[in-house]
Amino acid sequence: MRIEIVAVGTELLLGQIADTNSAWMGEQLAAAGVASHFHQAVGDNQSRIVLALRTALSRSDGVIVCGGLGPTQDDITRESIAEVMHVELVRDERIIERIRTMFSSRRRAMPDNNLRQADVPVGAAIIEQTRGTAPGLVCPLGNKVIYAVPGVPHEMQDMFERAILPDLRRRMAEAGEEAVIKSRVIRTWGASESGLAEALADRVDELDAWSSPDGSTLTIAFLASGIEGIKVRLTARAVTDAAAAALLDEEEGRIRGILAERLGDIVFGVDDQAMEHAIAALLIARKLTLGLAESLTGGLIGARLVNVPGSSAWFRGCIVAYDSAVKHALLGVSPGPVVSAEAAEEMATGAQRSLGSDVGLGITGVAGPEGQDGQSPGTVFVGLALPGSPPAAHQLHLPGDRDRVRQFSSISALDLLRRSLLARS
Amino acid sequence: MRIEIVAVGTELLLGQIADTNSAWMGEQLAAAGVASHFHQAVGDNQSRIVLALRTALSRSDGVIVCGGLGPTQDDITRESIAEVMHVELVRDERIIERIRTMFSSRRRAMPDNNLRQADVPVGAAIIEQTRGTAPGLVCPLGNKVIYAVPGVPHEMQDMFERAILPDLRRRMAEAGEEAVIKSRVIRTWGASESGLAEALADRVDELDAWSSPDGSTLTIAFLASGIEGIKVRLTARAVTDAAAAALLDEEEGRIRGILAERLGDIVFGVDDQAMEHAIAALLIARKLTLGLAESLTGGLIGARLVNVPGSSAWFRGCIVAYDSAVKHALLGVSPGPVVSAEAAEEMATGAQRSLGSDVGLGITGVAGPEGQDGQSPGTVFVGLALPGSPPAAHQLHLPGDRDRVRQFSSISALDLLRRSLLARS
Repeated sequence: MRIEIVAVGTELLLGQIADTNSAWMGEQLAAAGVASHFHQAVGDNQSRIVLALRTALSRSDGVIVCGGLGPTQDDITRESIAEVMHVELVRDERIIERIRTMFSSRRRAMPDNNLRQADVPVGAAIIEQTRGTAPGLVCPLGNKVIYAVPGVPHEMQDMFERAILPDLRRRMAEAGEEAVIKSRVIRTWGASESGLAEALADRVDELDAWSSPDGSTLTIAFLASGIEGIKVRLTARAVTDAAAAALLDEEEGRIRGILAERLGDIVFGVDDQAMEHAIAALLIARKLTLGLAESLTGGLIGARLVNVPGSSAWFRGCIVAYDSAVKHALLGVSPGPVVSAEAAEEMATGAQRSLGSDVGLGITGVAGPEGQDGQSPGTVFVGLALPGSPPAAHQLHLPGDRDRVRQFSSISALDLLRRSLLARS
Repeated sequence: MRIEIVAVGTELLLGQIADTNSAWMGEQLAAAGVASHFHQAVGDNQSRIVLALRTALSRSDGVIVCGGLGPTQDDITRESIAEVMHVELVRDERIIERIRTMFSSRRRAMPDNNLRQADVPVGAAIIEQTRGTAPGLVCPLGNKVIYAVPGVPHEMQDMFERAILPDLRRRMAEAGEEAVIKSRVIRTWGASESGLAEALADRVDELDAWSSPDGSTLTIAFLASGIEGIKVRLTARAVTDAAAAALLDEEEGRIRGILAERLGDIVFGVDDQAMEHAIAALLIARKLTLGLAESLTGGLIGARLVNVPGSSAWFRGCIVAYDSAVKHALLGVSPGPVVSAEAAEEMATGAQRSLGSDVGLGITGVAGPEGQDGQSPGTVFVGLALPGSPPAAHQLHLPGDRDRVRQFSSISALDLLRRSLLARS
């Protein structure tokens, strides 16, 4: 069962809004084991909507068309579907009554424009509206189908769950195609996308060649996500939810093992776990509090850490010493250049002392575009002070413009902290 | 000139990321006067990418395909384009050299996988990579064209502006299709979208009715942008660049006048000027330096301020006193509740004193989900200490979850600072 999503609305083409409806439906379809090989977006123009629908029907088993069911003149999804079906539109009195009731419950009269929302292609069934004024449509075309839903997200989502998903499940059961698709994302920092792909190439080939007696499949994909690192996505297709989860659990363990052996401690989380969640878990497990001293990042690292609910249990605070004088006065950094390994170490111990934390993390460097203290843009020093050890500094060379240098500095510094905390276990 | 965007990546179909690249390109194309009637998204599968490209070429004059140029086995946009062009791929030694240099500048060896990124369809031209490892492609097909760019947003945006837009402009000039569309965004904070629309309703109607002898048009649209405020976008279509700019200049002045009269000082910038740029300009004009004391925002305000190049001239630093003990010890906040007007004022004067700045801004509040000091989530106090005046505090009640409360707190505090600095002129 392959379903294509067609989003209707000139505002999508103009980039005035991002198409989050298609992303939401794509996720729901995948979770239900329905394949979706193509999405389209098209403007409010009947001949183009008709062309988009015909294109979709030529390469998929069904179409969900989203948007263009409103009451105004540029809402022409109903007319377009009727043209594709080669049928007339008929006005449905029961729908008019429902819309009229909806208006009168809000103590308003129904404008005549809304009559258009009661037009139904001959042969189509209705998805009753419970929130907005537009009903949805289920339009059979031979053994294929077009579903039409409004573009208002909560109306679309309601109709999708209440009517479309059950109808798709029925069709898949009839075709003997029921399956569950689940995915899991393993999040890494410190290896390149091609390095990861090389480390896992054998396993990718094995899985490609794997043929399960019950039709289960497991695939691996890589997703470069900038300052969020490189993601390794596992996708399992199985007969039941439990079977898909078991496939993912086993594969996650295997992949973690391969990566640890070949690339070291690069995995910091799974799915929604960001770097700051890894830091939080490690600090809590080791009963340590953290204080920061930031310079070029201006508070970015602190702002990431307080994203974690409950961070007040382990995050003491941060001194953003943007001005050199503040580094000397508040953090006790020695006179002289402030972009150096020594300054980073002194910032780390200064944070520990001033903020009364167990661990101190200091970061200083050059965001650019100008150099500073004889160092070129992208040069960054991270200082780390852990209880019972002398402070240590790490030098980084980061690519990109001012903003990227600061973003990469933040995540790199947190990753250094993560690895150091791991080593203390 | 009709350009279709084809986004490549299974993660788009699965809804794991929303397709913001297509929205961005759609907006840029519209601004350049290029029509875009269809967008497609397709997964990492060669026969389906080929089908999507052929479909796009059948109904548009050109295609921008975005994504699938990475180094891994599932990056197959190059192969798909070669199939559509009916040509071979040839490995380009100069591209290999560039990628190798990029790796060695980061002190890493180039993995063999990256060699694939040097494959070029015969007859295609290169868009040189300046940030990532993948070059873009310009592939002629008769009088049509396929442009290929990476899916990493900043690489895509760089190549779009540097190579695709100029090439499209040249093609449009050859076809005699040139019209100049320019837009300008007036950025506001402190009024609702419907309030803005009401204030400007008469002017919107006037412009709708305006008919210029040379076909010029001017339109106004509203764009709610969350923590970036409400944007008023002016779009001018004219025969020359200078004519479009003149229309925008005149209209910007008129709109600013109407808004100032009806809604006060709500305009803080134009186009890319964010709130932090407005703050920077005001501090520089008044020869004042700034120090911050943040609590619930964890460093967000500081991180925004250092976005402005040259911020070291007026930004001294920030004390993120997340723990109450740090508020008392480093900022001199009196014992007792730390979510109060008094604490916000003491934080502002504490920042002034500790950081040696002319102006002190302090912020304390409850991000949630739990309350604190008898205050409910969303309650925020902003303290402001200006030279020669006693400190003052403002109380805010902000909606939303933890993250939104922190984001809205940051921009609201900066807007309070902006209005106070304006009043000192």
